Amino acid sequence: MDEAVSTIGNGPLRTDVLVIGAGPVGLFAAFEAGVIGLSCHIVDALDEIGGQCIELYPEKPIFDIPALPVCTARELVERLMKQCQPFEPPIHLGQRVMRVEQRDEDKRWVVTTEQGLVFEAAAVLLSAGNGAFVPQRLVLDEAPALEGRHVHYAVRKRAMFEGQRVVVAGGGDSAVDWALALRDVAKRVTVVHRRETFRAAEASVGELKRAAQAGELDIVIGTIASLNAPGGTLQSVEIKQIGGATAIDADHVVALYGLVADLGPIADWGLDIRAGRVTVDTSNYESSRPGIFAVGDIALYPNKQKLILSGFHEASLALRKAYTYAYPDKKRMHVHSSYDTKLSERILGSVPATDDGTNT
Amino acid sequence: MDEAVSTIGNGPLRTDVLVIGAGPVGLFAAFEAGVIGLSCHIVDALDEIGGQCIELYPEKPIFDIPALPVCTARELVERLMKQCQPFEPPIHLGQRVMRVEQRDEDKRWVVTTEQGLVFEAAAVLLSAGNGAFVPQRLVLDEAPALEGRHVHYAVRKRAMFEGQRVVVAGGGDSAVDWALALRDVAKRVTVVHRRETFRAAEASVGELKRAAQAGELDIVIGTIASLNAPGGTLQSVEIKQIGGATAIDADHVVALYGLVADLGPIADWGLDIRAGRVTVDTSNYESSRPGIFAVGDIALYPNKQKLILSGFHEASLALRKAYTYAYPDKKRMHVHSSYDTKLSERILGSVPATDDGTNT
Repeated sequence: MDEAVSTIGNGPLRTDVLVIGAGPVGLFAAFEAGVIGLSCHIVDALDEIGGQCIELYPEKPIFDIPALPVCTARELVERLMKQCQPFEPPIHLGQRVMRVEQRDEDKRWVVTTEQGLVFEAAAVLLSAGNGAFVPQRLVLDEAPALEGRHVHYAVRKRAMFEGQRVVVAGGGDSAVDWALALRDVAKRVTVVHRRETFRAAEASVGELKRAAQAGELDIVIGTIASLNAPGGTLQSVEIKQIGGATAIDADHVVALYGLVADLGPIADWGLDIRAGRVTVDTSNYESSRPGIFAVGDIALYPNKQKLILSGFHEASLALRKAYTYAYPDKKRMHVHSSYDTKLSERILGSVPATDDGTNT
Repeated sequence: MDEAVSTIGNGPLRTDVLVIGAGPVGLFAAFEAGVIGLSCHIVDALDEIGGQCIELYPEKPIFDIPALPVCTARELVERLMKQCQPFEPPIHLGQRVMRVEQRDEDKRWVVTTEQGLVFEAAAVLLSAGNGAFVPQRLVLDEAPALEGRHVHYAVRKRAMFEGQRVVVAGGGDSAVDWALALRDVAKRVTVVHRRETFRAAEASVGELKRAAQAGELDIVIGTIASLNAPGGTLQSVEIKQIGGATAIDADHVVALYGLVADLGPIADWGLDIRAGRVTVDTSNYESSRPGIFAVGDIALYPNKQKLILSGFHEASLALRKAYTYAYPDKKRMHVHSSYDTKLSERILGSVPATDDGTNT
């Protein structure tokens, strides 16, 4: 399976269904699409297959996947990858979807990613969980104007901070690791975290505390209250502390608070959205724009439960409606997977024997 | 787990939810009930756990259970049994549900089986597939009146056929095995089957053909067209054949055409039924009688697909509504199974470690 298709031919990638989100539900959707005879591409903003459950709890046990009494998110994703493998759906990672446009002449959807991929699909299936993961930003009015020059949510080039006074905000692995990595380059590194305890690998936290004791960097317990940037140039950062406040002279703030899910550009697709989720019809999980479906945690309907198994069901029903957009003139017959010889051949590589030993 | 509870105390068996049907969906419903804190009993007309998929295709591969690329029905049922085991739901086999009555004083349901069990439940979940399995009957107007005396759909006592002329109808294992078993007892056995090929174990079919050649019994290819029973006493059976007809003198017809699913007494429960299925609301899979739910193949709603995975979803949502009948004053919080410590303890027997090695 192409886990990350990076080379593209000329023109858009044409598919029956474009699945947005490579979590468990998106992977199962690719399998179901194959079963009912639809071609399918998957696209995901993350660099890894598995969606939020791999991002948030890869090794925790999950108990409520039917017929899997206990499995980790990682194991679940591996099993679903194996299941969709016979249909070889191309999976495009690190691709954040931006725009969607419906073509007038044939009603097909043209979907563009931030990274420049263009898809052209008969139907779009949103299985994007709580949305694309983006860095949690500073909730300060003055921050957006400083973004890119003085306020950063990732470190792209270490050299950029050479000789600079840098505030690294956050207490997880990224914050701790980057504080340690920048201390040799920067003029001064100050770690700002809201409490004494760091939520990072023990060894890294040990090294951070040792470095602070050795005077190689500073640790300040508190939260960023405001950025002092007269004329658009950052000069210092105001820190609110328990029972007080302090200011740190700084040229840059690198805020590494972790990732949050965000509906992002999908919010502008003209879909009916309530409380950050896409409202759907429960007979086919279609959104307010016919041809765009929402399944899994991103979907909203009365009594919706955020259960992975619900996403599997929703995707199965949505794809049957999607089929009518891809092949409006064909009739699709319902066949139990056990009795589908073509499917058996594809999955098992041979026709299975029936109970009485003969081949169907 | 009590696979067949046969002893009953005095009075009805009290439970939050009564699940009718011990197929994959019913078993998963018992697990989900346990997860959300509902007690649950399961009842099934068959003598075996697993429902129609064990009855009809125990060893065929199933491909469309999410995260189980290939498994047989038997394996699926074993996995679901294991999954619900922590909650030890009593499973009552060989119990055909007959009547349901809603008590006026507390709106609870009293369900009675043909075999005499009585349940008293806050909610009833029908996961009965295509209904209870019953023998396929002769479609002849004169047959019902002769049932039990001259027309039989099972052999209870071989002695009953001593010295009698018996027509055994059918071509499967039951028909072949009983024809062979009755030849020593009966005056004459005639097997009537619509074609030359028998759908039974090779060895049995071989023995049947040998017995026919040796004159120990007769095989007639054709179908039963009518029963000649003047004054209510069977005298002969008319057989329709390709390009002809014949009559066989007979005192008994044992029709062993296999099992068919039948909604049976559930059809008289006052539920809205269309085309042999129970109509439900897709937000909670509740039938037209609040407190009775229908999930899996027995449920009908727009765009319903007979997929096992749909039944899992339907049961999960139905049980959340059922909870409000069992505990009208309690609020149930949605907790991801990964973060539910009590559930972890119950299933794993201990509290699982979190990603960073500490216990939650």
